[in-house]
Amino acid sequence: MTSPPDDLRSLETPALLLDASRMEANIERMHAQARRLGVRLRPHLKTSKSVEVARRTLRQDIGPITVSTLKEADHFAEHGFTDILYAVGITPGKLDHALRLRARGVELGLVLDNVDAARAVVSAAESAGVRLSVLLEIDCDGHRSGLQPEGDELLAVADALRSHWVSVAGVMTHAGESYNCRTPESLCAMAEQERAAAVRAAQRLRDTGHAAPVVSVGSTPTALSAAQLDGVTELRAGVFVFFDLVMAGVGVCAVQDIALSVLTTVIGHQRDKGWTIVDAGWMALSRDRGTASQPVDQGYGLVCDVAGRVLPGLVMASANQEHGIVALRDGSTGAPPELPVGTLLRIVPNHACATGAQHAQYHVLDGRGRVTERWPRFSGW
Amino acid sequence: MTSPPDDLRSLETPALLLDASRMEANIERMHAQARRLGVRLRPHLKTSKSVEVARRTLRQDIGPITVSTLKEADHFAEHGFTDILYAVGITPGKLDHALRLRARGVELGLVLDNVDAARAVVSAAESAGVRLSVLLEIDCDGHRSGLQPEGDELLAVADALRSHWVSVAGVMTHAGESYNCRTPESLCAMAEQERAAAVRAAQRLRDTGHAAPVVSVGSTPTALSAAQLDGVTELRAGVFVFFDLVMAGVGVCAVQDIALSVLTTVIGHQRDKGWTIVDAGWMALSRDRGTASQPVDQGYGLVCDVAGRVLPGLVMASANQEHGIVALRDGSTGAPPELPVGTLLRIVPNHACATGAQHAQYHVLDGRGRVTERWPRFSGW
Repeated sequence: MTSPPDDLRSLETPALLLDASRMEANIERMHAQARRLGVRLRPHLKTSKSVEVARRTLRQDIGPITVSTLKEADHFAEHGFTDILYAVGITPGKLDHALRLRARGVELGLVLDNVDAARAVVSAAESAGVRLSVLLEIDCDGHRSGLQPEGDELLAVADALRSHWVSVAGVMTHAGESYNCRTPESLCAMAEQERAAAVRAAQRLRDTGHAAPVVSVGSTPTALSAAQLDGVTELRAGVFVFFDLVMAGVGVCAVQDIALSVLTTVIGHQRDKGWTIVDAGWMALSRDRGTASQPVDQGYGLVCDVAGRVLPGLVMASANQEHGIVALRDGSTGAPPELPVGTLLRIVPNHACATGAQHAQYHVLDGRGRVTERWPRFSGW
Repeated sequence: MTSPPDDLRSLETPALLLDASRMEANIERMHAQARRLGVRLRPHLKTSKSVEVARRTLRQDIGPITVSTLKEADHFAEHGFTDILYAVGITPGKLDHALRLRARGVELGLVLDNVDAARAVVSAAESAGVRLSVLLEIDCDGHRSGLQPEGDELLAVADALRSHWVSVAGVMTHAGESYNCRTPESLCAMAEQERAAAVRAAQRLRDTGHAAPVVSVGSTPTALSAAQLDGVTELRAGVFVFFDLVMAGVGVCAVQDIALSVLTTVIGHQRDKGWTIVDAGWMALSRDRGTASQPVDQGYGLVCDVAGRVLPGLVMASANQEHGIVALRDGSTGAPPELPVGTLLRIVPNHACATGAQHAQYHVLDGRGRVTERWPRFSGW
C-alpha cells in the first residue's frame, strides 16, 4: 500500500474523487471524435451536474448543452448557458417552467413524441406569445420513448405542432440499446442504426414542409463507435466525461480511463469469511448494479488502493446503506491482501451518473493524486 | 382516475410525497411494541434524515436517536438532540469529528468490533482528555459486521478499551438477515436469535468487569416480531416510520401502510409494447431492487393513481435516469388502463431509505391528500 498524500488522509470518508487528468483525456477523445465526424457536441450534463465540469466538457465557458431536468436548465442558465436541450418528454405541467426559462433568454429545446404533448406546447406558446422550439423524439432501437421513423404518427405529431409560435427544429434519438452491445462491430452497427433512423425521420419532416434543421443523436457507446454520421448535426453523449465500469464492460473505455471513484476506509473484518468491511455502502456508490448483466459482474464496484491501482481479485461484493463488504471475486484464489482498519481504498463505480448523484461535491485530484479543488454538484428537481 | 387536489397538480414531478397519517400510525405501532416489550426506542434516523420526521418519530422534541453518519449526528445535534448513537464502526480518521461532537455536549455513542479501532479510540480519548462511550458490535446472524458473542475476541476488544477515559457502555447488534425471513415464525425466531446473542455478549462483558448497561438490538422486522426482549434495553429500528415494499414482502406491513411515494407524470406511451412512460426514473426512485429477491418482484415500484390507490397489475418495469417504464406485470392479463399524457401517478418504492435519499424534501400530505407542509431532508457526509 502506498502512503496517500496528506490531503486524502484528511478527507472524511466516503468521499467522491475526480481524477482531472483522466477526465481531460476523456473529454479530448470525444471532441476529437466529433471533429472527425463533422458534428457539433452538445454534451449531456446529467452525468456531472456541475458548472465546473460543464465548462471543461465544452472546452469553453459556454456552449450548447443537454439536460435531463428543468432544474439543470435553471442552474446552467444561471451560469450563463443559453442553448439548452431538455431531453426528456415535456408534459403539460412543466410548460410554465419552460416559459420562465424562455423569458430569461434561454434558447430552450423541448422534446416530445405524441400529439397530446404537441397540442399542449402549441397552446402554451400561443397563450404566452412566446416562440417554443421542439425536437421530435425518434425511437431508433425499441429501447424507450420515441416515434417510429417510418410511422404515420411522426407526421401527425409534426402537424399538430404547426403554429406561428412553434418551430419543429428537428429530431433527436438515443440508442440506449447500445449499452447491451458487446463488440466493436455491433456498436458500429448500432451507431449506424441510430444515425439512419434520425436522418430518415428528419427527411420525412422536411418532405412535408418542416424545416427540421437539427438531427441529434448520441449515446456514449455509439458516439465513440460511429464510422460516419452523414446527415447528423449534433452528438449528445454524457457519461464519456467520467466513464465507468459499465462503459468498460461495453468496451468503449479501459478501467484506467475511469475518472470517478469513491474514497472509503476499512472499518473492520470478518476474517473467517474473507470480508473487509468499509464505510462506503450503497448510499455512497448507489444501488446501480449495471455490470450484473455484463460478462464481468463488478459487484458494487472495483476495489483499488488509495493511489487508484486495482487490487486484483477484489470486488465490493455487497452493500448496505453505509457499509460495503469487500471480498474476493467468485473464482479468485489466494488470500485477500492485508487491509488493516483505517486503510483507505478507492472504489470504481458501475455507473458514474448514479454514483455521482449520491454526492454534493467532487474532490478533484491532480496527476499526483493531490486534492486541488472542490467542485460542487447539485441534484433534485 | 380521480382528479387530484390542485396542490398536487401544482407540484413539478417527480416529487416525494409523505402521507402523514400513515406515518403517524406506523410510529404509534412501534411505540406500542416498545412499551409492550419494556424497552426504550432509539429510532434510526438514517431513513428520514429530517428533523421534522425525527420529532414525530420520538413523539417529543428530543430523545435518544441512532444515526448512520457523523453528518447526521451534526445535523441533529444542531437541532438539540444530545443522545446520539453513531451505529457504523468508527475509524481512526473520524475520531477528531467525534471529539468535536463531544465538545459541543453530545453524548455520542461509538461502535466498533476490533482491537485496532479500540486502541485508536483509547488513544484519542486519552490525548484529548475526553470521555468516550463505546458499544461493541455483535454479529448475531453472519450478515455483516460484529464480534461473535461467544468468541475470545469480544473480551480482547473490551480489554483494549480499558481506560479511565473510555466506557464500555454495552453491546449492539443488527439482525440484517431478518430481511430474508418470510414467515412470522422465522421472524420471531430471528428476533430471539438477535436478543440472545446481544444479551449473552453483554453478560460476558459484565462477567469480566465491564459495566455494559446497554443492550441494543433492532431491525424493523425483528422489532415488530419479537415475543419478548428480556435483557435488552433498547430498540434501534428505522424504516418502520415509512415502511416500503421490501417490508411488505417480508410481511411486517401492508402496502397500505407505506407512507412514502413518488409523484410522477405520464410523458408518453409505446402502445404496441403496452408501455406507459413516466418522468420518474431511477434518479427519483433509486436503483434499489430489493424486492427482486422476494416472492413478488415489484420492479422499481408499485403503481398507484394520484390518490394512492394501487392500479392492479401495473408495475414500474424498468427505469432510466429520468424515465420510468410502467407496464403490466409478467403474467397479468387484460389491457393496461388508459393513462393519458399528463396523468399523475404515485409510485410506491421498494426501499424507503434509498428512495428518500434521492430527494431534498418531503411534500407532506394530510388525510385528504392535500400538501400541508414541506419538510427538508439532508444528505451526504
